[in-house]
Amino acid sequence: MSQPLPLPGFADVEAAAGRLSGLVRRTPVATSSGLDAELGARLFFKCENLQKVGAFKYRGASNTLAQLSPEALARGVATHSSGNHAAALALAARVRGAEAHIVMPRDAPAAKVEAVRAYGGQIRFCEPTQAAREQALRELVEQTGATFVHPYADPRVVAGQGTAAYELLTDLPDLDFLLVPVGGGGLLSGSALASRGLSPRTQVWGCEPERANDAFLSFRDKRHHPAHPPSTLCDGLLTALSPEVTLPIILREVDGILTASEDSILLAMKLIWQRMKLVVEPSGAIGLACLMEQPERFRGKRVGIILSGGNLDLNPMFSALKARSDSLASS
Amino acid sequence: MSQPLPLPGFADVEAAAGRLSGLVRRTPVATSSGLDAELGARLFFKCENLQKVGAFKYRGASNTLAQLSPEALARGVATHSSGNHAAALALAARVRGAEAHIVMPRDAPAAKVEAVRAYGGQIRFCEPTQAAREQALRELVEQTGATFVHPYADPRVVAGQGTAAYELLTDLPDLDFLLVPVGGGGLLSGSALASRGLSPRTQVWGCEPERANDAFLSFRDKRHHPAHPPSTLCDGLLTALSPEVTLPIILREVDGILTASEDSILLAMKLIWQRMKLVVEPSGAIGLACLMEQPERFRGKRVGIILSGGNLDLNPMFSALKARSDSLASS
Repeated sequence: MSQPLPLPGFADVEAAAGRLSGLVRRTPVATSSGLDAELGARLFFKCENLQKVGAFKYRGASNTLAQLSPEALARGVATHSSGNHAAALALAARVRGAEAHIVMPRDAPAAKVEAVRAYGGQIRFCEPTQAAREQALRELVEQTGATFVHPYADPRVVAGQGTAAYELLTDLPDLDFLLVPVGGGGLLSGSALASRGLSPRTQVWGCEPERANDAFLSFRDKRHHPAHPPSTLCDGLLTALSPEVTLPIILREVDGILTASEDSILLAMKLIWQRMKLVVEPSGAIGLACLMEQPERFRGKRVGIILSGGNLDLNPMFSALKARSDSLASS
Repeated sequence: MSQPLPLPGFADVEAAAGRLSGLVRRTPVATSSGLDAELGARLFFKCENLQKVGAFKYRGASNTLAQLSPEALARGVATHSSGNHAAALALAARVRGAEAHIVMPRDAPAAKVEAVRAYGGQIRFCEPTQAAREQALRELVEQTGATFVHPYADPRVVAGQGTAAYELLTDLPDLDFLLVPVGGGGLLSGSALASRGLSPRTQVWGCEPERANDAFLSFRDKRHHPAHPPSTLCDGLLTALSPEVTLPIILREVDGILTASEDSILLAMKLIWQRMKLVVEPSGAIGLACLMEQPERFRGKRVGIILSGGNLDLNPMFSALKARSDSLASS
């Protein structure tokens, strides 16, 4: 849609960290002595579930908005997404007084539509196909002149996502490993850039569901593999790497990709909820899930894990509680 | 079972805060600009769900253990409880190298039995009646010489529980209100003592489910009301005040008792999970639930709310996620 920007480097992550100070939340690092004892490692969880809009995506969206000219801001921003990026772009735009246009399929879950609306996003519905989505976005950009902000294939987004690892490695420069969820690769490539600049000896690994292991295959074969049909709970990790932006950075900067089964993801997620009292979404638990599948690799090590987000449908829990409350009342 | 100790005062809470420094977690204070905007008040949530064992109860148990003589420690401690106090006493004892004997009814939920065992507690099962419980505890204390640690009717426990509010009011001395869950009244009476010493102008209110409003009635009538039969989700708030310890402190130091419906409790709990990504149990959400039933009282005010704990059965959530994962795999 426009001239490709050069690939980002550490300096871009560092500049983003400065730019975003005060605009994004400096999220806390959580620890659990119980989990450490059971897994034989020292774990440091970077709580991006506590970021604004409940996900790291707010960093990349804010870093992009902060670099638009007043003229571009006046024309607004646009994206097609039904996930955390849409909510993040909507709020980042509102904070700058700009409009955010979000293309969403007609069959998007009501909760996701509501989240985008709550942050002030303008929704344009389309048929639920990739072609209709792209067509709707093209029309929207032509009509409004809005700037398209891709969820990950954009150097400004990558640099912004890298600020989570930048903060973590500023606080804890001596990590042996950094485990990062990988879907489209924005968070992973940004984290790798941050790590190479701040702590070159830290190994950076991408973490991915077995059932959506296209990044694993792309890394192994050093060529782009497309996304699988969705079959994992990790709805934030379904997309494939971008051949132009995130794949080249990941091939150059990342040490490897780990995968985990759905059962491991559920177990890791439950441990984070139970022991740390933190609501993380399935995609956010993938780092711990991968570590638990290969504990020997991490034994005695200091491991940073990015909890990427905490947005998921809580209705099953609250329906059960409501049913229990009703039965207590009548007993 | 032994000579009654004198009622605790602010000096006891202050001494407990010093004694517990480094022994208990200094829990963070969470905020949500979204909730503040919707409710028209500034809310400060003291995260005792992030305390060790997932509840404020670890403070009172630790404060009591820290004051036992080496001889008493060698004989161990004992209580009857199936809730957070049992887990807290077990861990506090283990930390001091002491045995904790916990009397539990035979029909206690497996998860609660497991939690106490995981912290090293010795469980003695009894028939599920109050008389059998008390009898089993008496026998146990006679056989072992263990010190009985009551969940709330003990000045050392009250002083320990007061350290959560002590920390909060040290960080934020200018609160207009402090909202505190009330079951047996240990947390509420300790919080009121802390507040009177550190911030006399802060109004301290107890918060209780409508369906277990014995503290409301006791406060109104200035005499002890017994507990209701259990009919609320707030399993941590079922017990009645202690006529000898917590009721007199509450009548003297507390500004009033608020109540909330089960629906308000569920709504408040869901908001805390969704917006703040914090797992709280129903009892832990009662403060926000009471505030939401009377928003006009708190408009424009700075309000501290104690999130008392985060222990609950997460199986409904994880069963639903597992079913969804299985259906994704087969589709």
